[in-house]
Amino acid sequence: MSNPQVAPTIGVFDSGFGGLTVLRALLERLPNARFVFIGDTARLPYGSKSRRTVARYASESARFLVEEQRAEFLVIACNTASALALDAIQEAVPVPVLGVIEPGAQAARSASKSGDVLVIATDATVQSHAYADACRGLGLLALEKACPLLVPLVEEGWIEHPVTVEVVRIYIEELLADAAAQRLRPDTLVLGCTHYPLLRALIETTVPPGMRVIDSAEAAAQAAAQLIDGSALRNSSGAPAEPALRFFATDSVEKFERLGSRFLKRPVGKVELVDLGG
Amino acid sequence: MSNPQVAPTIGVFDSGFGGLTVLRALLERLPNARFVFIGDTARLPYGSKSRRTVARYASESARFLVEEQRAEFLVIACNTASALALDAIQEAVPVPVLGVIEPGAQAARSASKSGDVLVIATDATVQSHAYADACRGLGLLALEKACPLLVPLVEEGWIEHPVTVEVVRIYIEELLADAAAQRLRPDTLVLGCTHYPLLRALIETTVPPGMRVIDSAEAAAQAAAQLIDGSALRNSSGAPAEPALRFFATDSVEKFERLGSRFLKRPVGKVELVDLGG
Repeated sequence: MSNPQVAPTIGVFDSGFGGLTVLRALLERLPNARFVFIGDTARLPYGSKSRRTVARYASESARFLVEEQRAEFLVIACNTASALALDAIQEAVPVPVLGVIEPGAQAARSASKSGDVLVIATDATVQSHAYADACRGLGLLALEKACPLLVPLVEEGWIEHPVTVEVVRIYIEELLADAAAQRLRPDTLVLGCTHYPLLRALIETTVPPGMRVIDSAEAAAQAAAQLIDGSALRNSSGAPAEPALRFFATDSVEKFERLGSRFLKRPVGKVELVDLGG
Repeated sequence: MSNPQVAPTIGVFDSGFGGLTVLRALLERLPNARFVFIGDTARLPYGSKSRRTVARYASESARFLVEEQRAEFLVIACNTASALALDAIQEAVPVPVLGVIEPGAQAARSASKSGDVLVIATDATVQSHAYADACRGLGLLALEKACPLLVPLVEEGWIEHPVTVEVVRIYIEELLADAAAQRLRPDTLVLGCTHYPLLRALIETTVPPGMRVIDSAEAAAQAAAQLIDGSALRNSSGAPAEPALRFFATDSVEKFERLGSRFLKRPVGKVELVDLGG
C-alpha cells in the first residue's frame, strides 16, 4: 500500500459569513479536503473601510488560519478583502492565496462575447476598481456599480421580497442606463459580493434576456479546485481523519450560526469564538 | 472684572456619524461649549456586535476623548453603545457620562398617556432590551423592534424614496400588529437609533394619527444641556478661545466628510484620522 496522503487543509476567510457561498462551492468540488473558515465578524463589514484597515484586519485572519490552524492554501472569500488586500495577505503568509476577483474576471472573459461587462459590488470593492483593473488585463471593459442595500436585504432574509425586487430593479436599471450612456454593449453581469449569490435567481430575471450572470464565488471555487488538483496538496486518500469543517468567528457567533446556514445551504453547527486582539 | 470661565469641553462619541444628530441638537442648546466628536468608523457598525466587543471599543474612544482631548463631560451619542456599554464607559473614565437611552425613555414617559410605548432601533439595541428596561423603571411598557434596513437606506440617501416609504410602512405595520396582539395601546414611538431622525418626517406620516414620535437624540441633548447648565462646567464667558468643533474618525474620513453634513445639517469640514490600535 502506498503512503496515504493527508487531506489538505484549506483556509477560507471572509469579513462575515457571505464567504460561506464560496465554501459551499468549494465543498462540492473538494469533498475530501479539510476546511477551516474564519469570519471576522467583530469588524465587519469591510465594505465601508479603507485599504489600510482592511489589509491589517485580513492579514490577522490569514495568519490565524496558517499559523494556528495550519492551512496550506488560502481562499479569500471576500470581494472587499480580495480587492483591497490580496497583496498584503500574500506577503503576510507563506502559502498560496487565491482571491475572488481574478477568477470572477476570468469567468466573465469566458462568458462575454461583446467584451463589455457589468459588475455589482460593495462600495469599497467598487471604489478600488479591482474588477475593472482585472477585466482590463483580460481585454474586457467593466462598468462597476456599488449596491449597498443588497447585503442588508439579504441579511434581513428578504430574498424574494417585493422591496428587494424593486431595489434590484432600480440598481440594474441605473447600471444599464450608465452603460448605454457610455455606448457599452454589456452581455455579462458579475456578482462581485459573496452575499449576492442568494439573490442570483432574482437578478437573473431582472437583467435583459440573454445577459449572463457570473457568480465570483463559484468562479473562485472552480479556480481553487483546479489549483489544488494540480498541486502537491492533492488528496487521493479519501476522507480526512479530523473533522472536515471548522468554523471560527471573531464575534457574533450566534448570528453566524443563525444566518450562516442560508449561505452554506446546510447547518453550520458550532462556531468557535476567536480573539484576534482587534 | 470677574475671572472668566473657560468654555467646557464636551466629548461626543458614536460608532459612526449618526451621532452627529445628537451633536446638532447639543450645538443648538450649548452654543458656547467646545465639542470634540469621535466616530469609531473603522469598527462600525456596533449594531451587529456583542456587548463585550462594543464595551471594549467604546471605552477606547471614551478614553481618547477624556485623556487626549480633555473632555470634561461625555455624551454617548450611539444607542447601541449606550445600551450595551454605558456602565463600562463610566468605569473607564473619571468624568460624567450620559447615554441616549435614559433620556429617550424619560421623554417617552413625558409624552405617553397610555403608558405603552414602541421603540425602533438596531438589532443589538433591541436584543439588549435597554429601552424596555429603562421604560419599565419609569412605569412604562415598551415594545421594541429591530429595523436593520433603515440605517443603510439613510446612508444610501434614500430619505424620501418610495422604497424607504415602503420599508418604513412594513416595519411600523409589523410593530403595530405585534402591539395589538399583546393588547397594548401604544401612543408614543421612540426613535432608538441616531440615524432615524433623518427619517422623522416620513415616520411621523406613517404612524397612526395622534401617535407622538420621540427623538432620543433630541432628548439626550436636552438632558445634557440641563446637566451642564446646573454644573460647574457652565460657561458664562461667551465664545471659546479654541476652535469650538473638532471631528475625529478611526477610518473612512472621506465618507464621514461626505455623509456627515446630512446628519449635522451644516458642513462637517475637516475630519482628523485617529488610530485607536484596534
